[in-house]
This record gives sequence, structure tokens and C-alpha cells, in this order.
Amino acid sequence: MRTIMWDDERGVVRMIDQRLLPAEFKLVDFHDHLQVADAIRDMVIRGAPAIGAAAAFGLALAGNISSATDPVLLRAELKDAAEVLQDARPTAVNLSWALQRVLQVAATAQGSAENVRAAVIAEAKRIADEDVEVNKRMARHGAILIDDGDTVIHHCNTGALATVDWGTALGTIRMAHQLGKQIHVLVDETRPRLQGARLTAWELEQYGIPYEIISDNAAGYFLQTGQVKKVFVGADRVAANGDVANKIGTYMLALAALDNGVPFYPVVPTSTVDLSLATGNLIPIEERNTAEVLDVQAAGRPIAPEGAAARNPAFDVTPHRLVTGIVTENGLVRPPYPENLARAVRGQIDQG
Amino acid sequence: MRTIMWDDERGVVRMIDQRLLPAEFKLVDFHDHLQVADAIRDMVIRGAPAIGAAAAFGLALAGNISSATDPVLLRAELKDAAEVLQDARPTAVNLSWALQRVLQVAATAQGSAENVRAAVIAEAKRIADEDVEVNKRMARHGAILIDDGDTVIHHCNTGALATVDWGTALGTIRMAHQLGKQIHVLVDETRPRLQGARLTAWELEQYGIPYEIISDNAAGYFLQTGQVKKVFVGADRVAANGDVANKIGTYMLALAALDNGVPFYPVVPTSTVDLSLATGNLIPIEERNTAEVLDVQAAGRPIAPEGAAARNPAFDVTPHRLVTGIVTENGLVRPPYPENLARAVRGQIDQG
Repeated sequence: MRTIMWDDERGVVRMIDQRLLPAEFKLVDFHDHLQVADAIRDMVIRGAPAIGAAAAFGLALAGNISSATDPVLLRAELKDAAEVLQDARPTAVNLSWALQRVLQVAATAQGSAENVRAAVIAEAKRIADEDVEVNKRMARHGAILIDDGDTVIHHCNTGALATVDWGTALGTIRMAHQLGKQIHVLVDETRPRLQGARLTAWELEQYGIPYEIISDNAAGYFLQTGQVKKVFVGADRVAANGDVANKIGTYMLALAALDNGVPFYPVVPTSTVDLSLATGNLIPIEERNTAEVLDVQAAGRPIAPEGAAARNPAFDVTPHRLVTGIVTENGLVRPPYPENLARAVRGQIDQG
Repeated sequence: MRTIMWDDERGVVRMIDQRLLPAEFKLVDFHDHLQVADAIRDMVIRGAPAIGAAAAFGLALAGNISSATDPVLLRAELKDAAEVLQDARPTAVNLSWALQRVLQVAATAQGSAENVRAAVIAEAKRIADEDVEVNKRMARHGAILIDDGDTVIHHCNTGALATVDWGTALGTIRMAHQLGKQIHVLVDETRPRLQGARLTAWELEQYGIPYEIISDNAAGYFLQTGQVKKVFVGADRVAANGDVANKIGTYMLALAALDNGVPFYPVVPTSTVDLSLATGNLIPIEERNTAEVLDVQAAGRPIAPEGAAARNPAFDVTPHRLVTGIVTENGLVRPPYPENLARAVRGQIDQG
């Protein structure tokens, strides 16, 4: 079971509606790129790699439902669809990375509109398949960092649900567990959307990995009392200098890890590395609807006085000075990041 | 209107039930010390200074309802009641501080049981009245630190509701506002019990001070983007070396403040300073029911899979190296804390 799937027979994209977990497991079909853009925006699907795959499948849908018989016309429609999908969420670079990959294939596919259409769908499927493989490669590199008996802190959800399958940081924990290591996970609940409490806990239940949910607030306590050996997080975009944009709260978690000498590892496919941005300051940070803060789980039971104002930045940037190492599918990247990240993106990492 | 009041006519203690705010404002009567201990434990009343006053009034109730005509017997009953109250919550030192004050008066009061009874009630009232005065003195010292136009971050609730009246850190913000300074408050929601979103926002509405609620997670973002000038918090216990036990999350907030060169000020009556403890490591940290984490506002809508495990430490310790200064009713205490805190407790602070 994947987080997002292409249904060849019906020409639809099927996703797990992550807004309903863990209370309800529901698959939803999407018929065009507009629906997919809404799904990304509303967080039916979330997690940088999953968003990338969703964007690619969004383009595949746009191609599939297009009645264009002229390949030039079809390419123009795909470009319009890509703009809509691009605007769905700003921070995760995987979105534009995946769109560019699919558009590139559309641009170079030879022959009829039908050929272009088939090439686009094939490329979207390839992106999804590759994501799973990349995650497993990352997980093998990352699992080496986890010792038998470790308690680790994990922020947000970076598991199968955040990717097409398997996961990044949570995939690393899962791999170490599969290799027979005893691991205990302190799961940051991850306000405001509670991806940790809702999704990561749900995944850990399935994998049989012991865990305890904590308020994000409490991570510092467990770090300062010596109960945590490592911190693992994902990322939505990594700048060329190793600055890491990730789910809000990651920066404070990284500070607390460093203050207690606990290694802090983002687990990041190279598709999340944006070498075009010199530093993390340049990464666009999405600010989302304040209802996410004021009404937990949209339960209709506000946590604050009526009419209260709020702010809701969805990501923050962890400066590279707080980052012990970045796990990629090509191996563990250590400082200095500018050189070593570029090398990892080219696949030329030195595992010395 | 005070958070906690003694009703002379009826011989009861009346409190605002803070669990219901902001949805409902309700006053509840308490008839004996057992009910008061429950109220402290269940957080009908919370906040270190308010807990101190509640404990004192709990003893006053125990004395008031006692049928003892022998002062020796009455003193024994008061001591038993003090033990029950002492066990209600472990971290805030104000609880034992207030109990000791009342027991001391009971021990030295001359004459009949009636005299002892009257002395105990009078001392409890004095503790409550003094708290309000102490808070206003702190607020005047603290308000000097706030500049016109400042945006400040505030954690938990430290206002009138956390004290008998006026507040500590929030009292400082309120005083600066009354002095005509424009202030904008970023209100940490303060998981798991949401004292910030529920109580601090409710108070700020009444004072007409502009604010925005943020996930605790987001404080780092606002600090690192240069939007915050100062951080103000309360405390539940301050060790002799200046380590500050306060609501969970304070430590990570202090780390983020320091990392961005933003001053971090606990506002603390000297009744919260525990010179008997050399360092913060020695402060007992309460771990509360995990239902507070797993079921937000006891709404009956769990945030995690059924049967999920959790941890819920209610406080953490901010090391003194992260503390810019401690505002007390006797003035601002700067490092070195061991000498200067002891001087402040003796009332001999040098405002040089």
C-alpha cells in the first residue's frame, strides 16, 4: 500500500486522506490536477517527497484528461497545470523538482500527443517508484547511526505517509528496527497539525516500534535529562550551505540537541536539496491558516477566546551549524556542507 | 476580582475555575483543605504564586472547620492538613513556602484555639494581599525593560490568574502597557494544557493589549526572523544558582532567545526562590497524567491512535547561563546569581 498510487485502469490518482488518520483510513480518488493541487494545499497528502510525487501525478492527470491531439497544445496545457500545482505549497522544493522532471520529459518526448501523454504518465510513475528506492537507500545509510538500545526524538511525520512509501527519517528508524536494533521513539506531537501524534504514532504502531508521544515543548526536558541519544528529522528544502527548512519547531529541537551534545540528523533525499539557494534565509516559508492553531484538529472547539488572532508559520530554518550530518540516498553528508552536499547531489559521496 | 478569595461571612474559599476558561467564567466554593488540595492537583487554580495562596487558604479552611477547642490539637490538625496540601503538586516552591508561613503563625499564636484559628486565617489573607503588592512591585521593575514598540514572547500564563491578582511576567507586560508603551505579545499556546491560548489570551483581551497566539514550536521562527525583542516568563522554583524551573518548553524558548541575542527574563517573586537548592537539577519535576497530552482540552477526541503511550513532564529547568536577568519585587537580579539572588531575597538589592 502506497501513500499515493496511479490507477491505470481508471486513469485516476488515489491517495490516503491523511487528514482523517488515525481515526479513519480512507482512500480518495483524484481526477484532475486541480483536485490534486487542492489535496496538496489542504494536506490530504503532505511531506516533501510525497508532495513531489503528487505534483508529478497531478501533471499525469492533466495529460490524461486532456483532449489535445496536437502535442504542442498538450505541452502548453501541461505547463499551465504545472503552474497551478507549483502554487499549491511554497516550501518543499520537491514539488518544483518533480514538475520540472515531468515537463522536461514532455518537452523531449517524440511524436504524437499520445506519445507525450504516455511519457508524462510513465515519468510520474518513475518518480514515485524511485522515491521508494531512494528512501530505502537513505534508510540503510541512516540506520548505521542508530545503536541498539537508543532512544531517539522524531519530529513531524517522515514515514511512509510523508513519501510514496517507506519514509525518510522514520524510514531510517524503521530500517534500524528491521535490522534487529531495539529503539524507543519519543514522538513530537508536532503542533499545529499533530502529524507526529496522528501519523507517526500510527505508523510506529504498525511497525511494532515502541514509542511515546510528547508535547513538542517537552523535547528539551528529555534531552537535558540525558534520555535521548539522537534526533532524526526530515526536511522540506536544504540550501546549498546545509541550512535545513523543515516543519516548524525543528530549529528549537536542533538547538536543544546541540546544547546537550546529542547528534541531530536530517534525513533528506537529494531531490530536497536546492543548490540554487546559497542559504536557508532564501527559502520561502509558508504561513498557513491560523485556524490550524486555534482549533485543534478542526474539532470546532477553539482553544482561545473568540476572535483571537494567531500566526502560523509552517516551517523554520535550522542553521547548518546545528546539523551533525545530513543522511542522503548517496550517504551521510558531513560538514563542510557547501562542497559535500554538491558532491552528494552528484552522487559522488565519499564514505570515508 | 481576584483569582482566589476568602469569604468571611460563609467561611469558604472561592476560586475561578481556570479549567473552564475562556469558554466559561465560573466561581467555585471550597469548604475544606481536601477540596483545595484537589483543586491544586486538578489545576482549577495554577501558577506558583496562586498555588501558594491556595495552600494558605486551604490551611485557613482546615482551621476554620476544626472543632478543636485545644490549641495543641488544632495545631496538630493544621499540620496534618499541611501535609495533604504539600503533596498536591511538587514543583512550585510557593506551596511549601506559604504552608510554612501559616504553620509558623499557628505555632506562635498565643492563647486559645480561637486565637490560633483567627491568626491562621489572618495570615492566609496577608499572604494573598502581599502577593498582589509584590506583583505590582515586580511589574514596575520589569516594565523598565520593555521599550515602546516591543514585540515580546510570553510562555504559559503568568497573569492575574497565575497569582492572586496582577501577575508576574504578564503583570510586567500589563504595567508597561499602562505606562503607555505599545507592546505586541506573541502568546505561546503552551501545550499540553494550553494556558497561553486559553488564559493569557483571555487576560490580554481584557487589558486591551494586542497579541497573537502561536504554537510553542513557532517561537524559534519569530526569534530567528528578528521579530522579537524580549522574552518574559514566570517560574515555579528558582535554585540558588539562578537555574529556573518553569512550565515545560521554557528551556527551549530560552535557548532560542540566546541563539538570537534576545534577552530572556523570568519574573519571579522571592517566595519562588529556593535558596536551599544549590542547582536546578535538584528541583522535583512533576510528571502529570498523559491524558493531558493525548486528549486536548479533554475534548474526548484523542490526537493519537487508541492506546498510544505518552510522557508528560510539566516543567523543565532553564540553566542560569541562558537567563539574562531575574526580575524580583526587590529589583532586577543580574549574574552572578548565587550572590545576587541571596541578596534579593534579603531585600538588599543594589539597583546600580
